[in-house]
Amino acid sequence: MITGKNYIGKDLSSKGNQTYNTFDPNANQATEWTFYEATKEEIDSAVGKADKAFQLYKNLSGAKKAQFLEAIAEEIDALGDELIQAYCKESGLPQGRAMGERGRTMGQLRAFAELLKEGSWVEATIDTAQADRQPFPKLDLRKMLLPIGPIAVFGSSNFPFAFSTAGGDTASALAAGCPVIVKSHPMHAGTGELVSSAIIKAAERTGMPDGVFSNLNSSGIEVGQQLVLHPKVKGVGFTGSIKGGTALYKLANERKEPIPVFAEMGSINPVVVLPSALQEKGVFWAQQYAGSVMLGAGQFCTNPGLILGVKSTSLDAFIDALGEEIEKLEPSCMLHPNIHSNYEKGKEEVSAQGGTDVVAEYKKQTAPNYAGQKVLTVNGVNFLKNPKLHQEVFGPFSLVVRCADANELTEVLNCLEGQLTGTVLGNAEEIERYGSVIDALQGRVGRLIFNGVPTGVEVCPSMQHGGPFPASTDSRFTSVGVSAIKRWVRPVSFQNWPQEALPEALRDNNPLSIMRIVDSEHTNKKIE
Amino acid sequence: MITGKNYIGKDLSSKGNQTYNTFDPNANQATEWTFYEATKEEIDSAVGKADKAFQLYKNLSGAKKAQFLEAIAEEIDALGDELIQAYCKESGLPQGRAMGERGRTMGQLRAFAELLKEGSWVEATIDTAQADRQPFPKLDLRKMLLPIGPIAVFGSSNFPFAFSTAGGDTASALAAGCPVIVKSHPMHAGTGELVSSAIIKAAERTGMPDGVFSNLNSSGIEVGQQLVLHPKVKGVGFTGSIKGGTALYKLANERKEPIPVFAEMGSINPVVVLPSALQEKGVFWAQQYAGSVMLGAGQFCTNPGLILGVKSTSLDAFIDALGEEIEKLEPSCMLHPNIHSNYEKGKEEVSAQGGTDVVAEYKKQTAPNYAGQKVLTVNGVNFLKNPKLHQEVFGPFSLVVRCADANELTEVLNCLEGQLTGTVLGNAEEIERYGSVIDALQGRVGRLIFNGVPTGVEVCPSMQHGGPFPASTDSRFTSVGVSAIKRWVRPVSFQNWPQEALPEALRDNNPLSIMRIVDSEHTNKKIE
Repeated sequence: MITGKNYIGKDLSSKGNQTYNTFDPNANQATEWTFYEATKEEIDSAVGKADKAFQLYKNLSGAKKAQFLEAIAEEIDALGDELIQAYCKESGLPQGRAMGERGRTMGQLRAFAELLKEGSWVEATIDTAQADRQPFPKLDLRKMLLPIGPIAVFGSSNFPFAFSTAGGDTASALAAGCPVIVKSHPMHAGTGELVSSAIIKAAERTGMPDGVFSNLNSSGIEVGQQLVLHPKVKGVGFTGSIKGGTALYKLANERKEPIPVFAEMGSINPVVVLPSALQEKGVFWAQQYAGSVMLGAGQFCTNPGLILGVKSTSLDAFIDALGEEIEKLEPSCMLHPNIHSNYEKGKEEVSAQGGTDVVAEYKKQTAPNYAGQKVLTVNGVNFLKNPKLHQEVFGPFSLVVRCADANELTEVLNCLEGQLTGTVLGNAEEIERYGSVIDALQGRVGRLIFNGVPTGVEVCPSMQHGGPFPASTDSRFTSVGVSAIKRWVRPVSFQNWPQEALPEALRDNNPLSIMRIVDSEHTNKKIE
Repeated sequence: MITGKNYIGKDLSSKGNQTYNTFDPNANQATEWTFYEATKEEIDSAVGKADKAFQLYKNLSGAKKAQFLEAIAEEIDALGDELIQAYCKESGLPQGRAMGERGRTMGQLRAFAELLKEGSWVEATIDTAQADRQPFPKLDLRKMLLPIGPIAVFGSSNFPFAFSTAGGDTASALAAGCPVIVKSHPMHAGTGELVSSAIIKAAERTGMPDGVFSNLNSSGIEVGQQLVLHPKVKGVGFTGSIKGGTALYKLANERKEPIPVFAEMGSINPVVVLPSALQEKGVFWAQQYAGSVMLGAGQFCTNPGLILGVKSTSLDAFIDALGEEIEKLEPSCMLHPNIHSNYEKGKEEVSAQGGTDVVAEYKKQTAPNYAGQKVLTVNGVNFLKNPKLHQEVFGPFSLVVRCADANELTEVLNCLEGQLTGTVLGNAEEIERYGSVIDALQGRVGRLIFNGVPTGVEVCPSMQHGGPFPASTDSRFTSVGVSAIKRWVRPVSFQNWPQEALPEALRDNNPLSIMRIVDSEHTNKKIE
């Protein structure tokens, strides 16, 4: 049942006077659910509880924390239809997507549980003592990753499950040993509350300390700001706009004690179409890309917003085919009227830039909050001189740039901001031939894709979801896949520390049987 | 030969009009060496060369980069006495220290060379395709660490070799595949130029691209600021004061594209003396700590500036013994008159705070720029209410806090800023008994030491040199040991990428025979 209250640890709380409702974009009306904006007192209380919980939670074994994560997955599943219905109502997304995303979210929680049970992720590194080393004896030194403290998580609008309440940021922080305070996304606060109830149930069932998780409602920016500025919050995870992410990043850097902010922000995901792809599979790729641009009403951070090729009749044919294919598809509902109006505004603004021509545009009347697709084209010279054409239009929109030659294509790539992904359509021989194009692309992105579409982010250890700014605030980390845990830990060395007082991961007898680096060798053996 | 010029890549350059000399603190007079402040044009030229060099350098094999690092060590060695003499003259430090630090610096370069030759540091992670996975096929995805681009390195005053021109920041960045532009420390610009000449010789001898290394002279702050703000600089390494490091950190965050800054700044390195240590080895530890406080005129970031114990007659006896022992020692020369006068000022300021009592003070007349040691004591209540007592006094100074009980000791630790190290003197049983004290200490530091002194930073894989702010700007990284390379790289994923176009580290046949994570298992085998 959705109560509209905040979870301050395990306690439901509604001390504030300000309320708001979520919105059903398909019905184009507010939902029946009213939410209580968290107060300053409630924020302090949630962070205070998180800090206390941290003292206990950080010392729990990996196996115990894994039980908690698995229990969260089970409790989310147990919410059944009520959860799926709330998701669909608050997001306008269809049931199949809701169920798929729920599965992914449970999969993420279980992947972190597996990581914890296996245990090697702590990067245990041991250098044993050498009493007879000259000129000084070498002391015993052992290092491992330990959690940094309570983390504030800002859920995204476009993934009510996978990048929100119990999404990748929360799962990775809890796995690391850090309590989490979620600033619930106001567009799906009901879904968020239900998922929160599952986390709280799981925490109680597996004996986690109260405060290991809290969920705060807020429709404005103050709650988030207060969270980021709270001295006991030690890190921030955010998925959303460049404006929002950058603001939190700056705020965190202005603290007396700056803290790390991992913000995954916008991306237009350049796609380079090389001659062989145009000549041999132009129609195929036009179909694939029409589908990728339209997927989920274009509301993905990996949406292909920029397609690049060198002027040729086969590029013209590809553009025509892309236009034809995308006009065959029917618009779908966006997440919220605000997102829809921002889409319309962004589309209009880019369309008004000099040198752009319309390739395809959905012109029929749509239901309210439905996003009509649009594809534009522009030449390389105009693109290079106008940064407005680089900006993300969040929705089913893409811009095709016709470059004069491979040099101009390289120049276009070199002028782009950082991106989550970069895609190359072509053949293996072209990767060598267009070396400087590929090099420029690689320098700008977190993930390179060959002959595929950027939408669809596999959750696996080798996924990099994060790229040079502004794709994310720190390209050295990922928000998807088990490596996401590295954002919330820091190495701590123990010098000459007594065996019995060392964390298990660092003891001679390797009781967790993990892979370690001992005297510069990878090994899972004991130290004799 | 010291020319006083900048190295813009391999070219010596002196386009500016502004000059300055270095200073010999033992002779208390300027040296004969005059240095040309780098101009805006020279800065641009160095960064431009670095950016071009990056395009080639990043693609060199680990073996080739290792040759370069080893050649740097050889060329530093080949500078012989001239280098040692310049070091001693510009730093006031004795010859033994110079030779020891040179050995350490060559050792660091060789440790990174070994890391590159072994090759597993790139964290190659592979998830193979599963064409029959439901509901979607799983695509082949492979990830490894790749360099981020040109790095600006700010050398420290107190380690003219190990944390300067060819020190840990430079060695780790070059190992990562990033060109380096050093902003030479003005106190030892001559030493820096000689070391730079060794790096340039090594680069030419091993066929490195011009621009892989540059060295810029500057006695002010503008050159450093311009470097940090240059769009083609992609990261910053700094060792020095909280003020300097924080200023660069803020500057880097205000860029259109913020870049990572790893600044290793101040630390007072709390030492907790538990009852057994006081009762059984009080005099021994008093001797050890007198030596540690005095080492290198106290000019180490790991200098023990804060000693904490619980009031008792044995603590009183320890404090008396510490005072006696430290008064037996003779002062030594500081790095520069400015550092000396800052030391005197800092010592005076802390001594003037209410509730402090003098334990020991060197009162005899010293030679110019020599640092007279001082130890103060204060009770826990006064320490807790006065943050001025937490600040680092860079020099042979320490403050002993007498806490009322273990709770107050915990409170004192919890009010401290982040630290590089925290030390516990006692026995193993006390680590358990004083659990909350140890926990509080662990939460504040990067390295925990048992029964030892914090001075002396072993260069090895398990070293963590970096702690919560302000010990460093990002506690998730270290500036000492081979893990320091992780500051200058980011993961890049290759999805469905053709075998022959993949970096060697990610190919099926594992030509580098490195340890990888393949389908979640650690292995150095090929993929069949």
